[in-house]
Amino acid sequence: MSKVSKVFLSEKEMPKHWYNLAADLPTPLQPPLGPDGNPVTPEMFAPIFPMNLIEQEVSPERWIDIPEGVLELLYRWRPTPLHRAYHLEQALGTPAKIYYKNESLSPAGSHKPNTAVAQAWYNKEFGIKRLTTETGAGQWGSALAFACSLLGLECKVYMVRISFDQKPFRKMLMGAWGANCVPSPSTETKTGQAILDKDPDTPGSLGIAISEAIEAAVMDESGQTKYSLGSVLNHVMLHQTIIGQEIKKQLEIFGEKTPDVVIGCAGGGSNFAGTAFPFVADKINGADIDIIPVEPASCPTLTRAPFLYDHGDVAKMTPLLPMYSLGHEFIPPPIHAGGLRYHGMSPLVCAATLEGLLNPRAIHQMECYESAILFAKTEGIVVAPETSHAVAATIQEANKAKEEGKEKVIVFNLSGHGLLDLTGYDKFLKGELTDYALPEEDILKYTEPLADLPKPSMAKTGKW
Amino acid sequence: MSKVSKVFLSEKEMPKHWYNLAADLPTPLQPPLGPDGNPVTPEMFAPIFPMNLIEQEVSPERWIDIPEGVLELLYRWRPTPLHRAYHLEQALGTPAKIYYKNESLSPAGSHKPNTAVAQAWYNKEFGIKRLTTETGAGQWGSALAFACSLLGLECKVYMVRISFDQKPFRKMLMGAWGANCVPSPSTETKTGQAILDKDPDTPGSLGIAISEAIEAAVMDESGQTKYSLGSVLNHVMLHQTIIGQEIKKQLEIFGEKTPDVVIGCAGGGSNFAGTAFPFVADKINGADIDIIPVEPASCPTLTRAPFLYDHGDVAKMTPLLPMYSLGHEFIPPPIHAGGLRYHGMSPLVCAATLEGLLNPRAIHQMECYESAILFAKTEGIVVAPETSHAVAATIQEANKAKEEGKEKVIVFNLSGHGLLDLTGYDKFLKGELTDYALPEEDILKYTEPLADLPKPSMAKTGKW
Repeated sequence: MSKVSKVFLSEKEMPKHWYNLAADLPTPLQPPLGPDGNPVTPEMFAPIFPMNLIEQEVSPERWIDIPEGVLELLYRWRPTPLHRAYHLEQALGTPAKIYYKNESLSPAGSHKPNTAVAQAWYNKEFGIKRLTTETGAGQWGSALAFACSLLGLECKVYMVRISFDQKPFRKMLMGAWGANCVPSPSTETKTGQAILDKDPDTPGSLGIAISEAIEAAVMDESGQTKYSLGSVLNHVMLHQTIIGQEIKKQLEIFGEKTPDVVIGCAGGGSNFAGTAFPFVADKINGADIDIIPVEPASCPTLTRAPFLYDHGDVAKMTPLLPMYSLGHEFIPPPIHAGGLRYHGMSPLVCAATLEGLLNPRAIHQMECYESAILFAKTEGIVVAPETSHAVAATIQEANKAKEEGKEKVIVFNLSGHGLLDLTGYDKFLKGELTDYALPEEDILKYTEPLADLPKPSMAKTGKW
Repeated sequence: MSKVSKVFLSEKEMPKHWYNLAADLPTPLQPPLGPDGNPVTPEMFAPIFPMNLIEQEVSPERWIDIPEGVLELLYRWRPTPLHRAYHLEQALGTPAKIYYKNESLSPAGSHKPNTAVAQAWYNKEFGIKRLTTETGAGQWGSALAFACSLLGLECKVYMVRISFDQKPFRKMLMGAWGANCVPSPSTETKTGQAILDKDPDTPGSLGIAISEAIEAAVMDESGQTKYSLGSVLNHVMLHQTIIGQEIKKQLEIFGEKTPDVVIGCAGGGSNFAGTAFPFVADKINGADIDIIPVEPASCPTLTRAPFLYDHGDVAKMTPLLPMYSLGHEFIPPPIHAGGLRYHGMSPLVCAATLEGLLNPRAIHQMECYESAILFAKTEGIVVAPETSHAVAATIQEANKAKEEGKEKVIVFNLSGHGLLDLTGYDKFLKGELTDYALPEEDILKYTEPLADLPKPSMAKTGKW
């Protein structure tokens, strides 16, 4: 019998609770603030989200039961396997044992459906008939389209126009699942119409698309439309924690105890949080784990931005969130990892970073593609450009273990496959890809104007 | 605890042998013939294939051990889960129980890697350094690129030029796995150059690409290059039988005995054979199973073509194979299921059809897309255009069970996902898709000239 390459779990063995890091943070999470500088109350979220999800957003409970209805939706593709990367280890000649969780096996190709099905289910329970959302390249839009399709909800996706035109395949995928995907800015909202009146040829932006999706939800007088977000918020992080809980069970089956290093890429923070938070809980309780969120050097939120209160979107429709931010007007360079091009970061991930529980790292795009090519050639999976950041950090850590001569256990989350994002690989292989590290003056340009906003009191970094 | 949605197997439970239907066919399979009308000897295949694979091609053994090295390659993604399609059943209101085997979870997105890794491994064992092949839309080319990448073999893919230009993504995928993919006709072979000299703007064809790939293998004087084929041949069918064997184990875990209906789409025959042959063995031994290969109405090989000896390719480079054929010069209409656009069919699948062991069916493209959309909305997976034919037949059978009021067990193979083939869905949803059933005169036009070729003696259908 050969060595075991991967471990499945049965549906019965799938975790039945979500883990809420907010319950265990040494310093309580600070609240989002309204435009007046006062904390936002749950009721103020009510026009946008259903109350059952708002309750999760503000919940102080450590464990939250996953309803049977959500479990049944997750069983469509979960639990996902944990693989041992024997062939990558061999290619690197490292004494480290590398494991990866394969979240690319969902029908939408990433971890995003974990929260999409939960959000769609809670909205349906609340009597909602229709969800709106925004999407950039289409990962989140297609995940929500998938979830709404399974539950018979209508789904309206505002997709940034330049992606809508240049990347038609995720739009077609949403169509196959019955979603209505329109280019943003659209003529269907006041926000969109106003922008089009001023500039009919605008390429659009995620900020505009968020504004349109929220407007479309709020303006439906029947009250049957809500808005859905794929990252950043607490309840989204919560829904992803099934990933890390499964990893723990699977590492145990592989005969491993606590891993030495846990790695995930981080844009808004959701796949990282889902992977890492169950291990952060162990670290709070004394375990010695190096937990690494990995971001692009061109959009270095956790590693270089100040911690402050900032808006989640360009149009300032969202409340002020306590987070590391490059400024809500910051426009990240056009790297291929579209899902990591976000100016802010989940407040929970930021709080854990502030507490010293995480060890963030920024990596250049070129090194990420080099690492992804090595992974494809050894382990056989062509990963998403976002995921290539986690692969690159894993290879860095495996090489470090080699230098140190230590048999470390490294786990990373393979958050998605790259089958709908192959252009970056093609450009890299043709030598056409450029790299980009954010200059200091850009950070200052976009963050200095934020000095007028309220300041969070737990800022321990002294950067601000 | 909710109902079980799907069953995994551990790597330990994965079948360790391939099943060879040739051993059990009531009438022995007739041999391929050379240009002189005499049977081709194993030695005559030697310039193209390594001898260890030729031995499998002509083997009379019922069970062939899967070498440990191949098992380790299959463990990268296998065993694949068997799902129960509760939600499709519910939508149809059928008393039938529908199961599907999910072969879309391989890194290349289909069942093709099952034989790609086996062929690459045997070639490497034989001392081969480089494989050549042809590909149409790119499914097979990317599967072989994946396999060669894992084993450190060079891979050269001749891709039909019109697909190379119009469908760049599978080409990029092959590139990520390190394969060298060129448009066919190319300037790299005599065949390609001659065709380009005559018509520099030719869109190419699978026939031309096959000729180029074989020429490139044969012309390498070092003897270190061989050719690899993704379907039709006996050893390819053999390698796929792991699918049906896994299904049997998984049905047992679900508490099912022999299924009533087994379904797979059929172009060259490999995913169908892999799924069905282990059940054909049971049928030969008396089990009552309806086994249905499904083909497009526009390319109705098993359902409407005569059984005869014909070439596998347009350029007549291959031996004459005993099969149902629409004629080697037949050019199928441009339906989206590119993998089903083949004039012939695996001799083993044809022989089983002749023996009355299979019940082939042809379905129109429009019904296939309608069925695939229903499947996407209920079960959540966007299937490949090829696979949509299996889904359509499954829905037909489930509706028949409803009319008859019978609780049948139906199993089909979900041979691949459609993430790299979304254009057909888009056109279908926009109402731009056309359908096409092959007119009788087209069949006659391409098959009547074949009357001069040798005739197989086991033709029981009386069609020829």
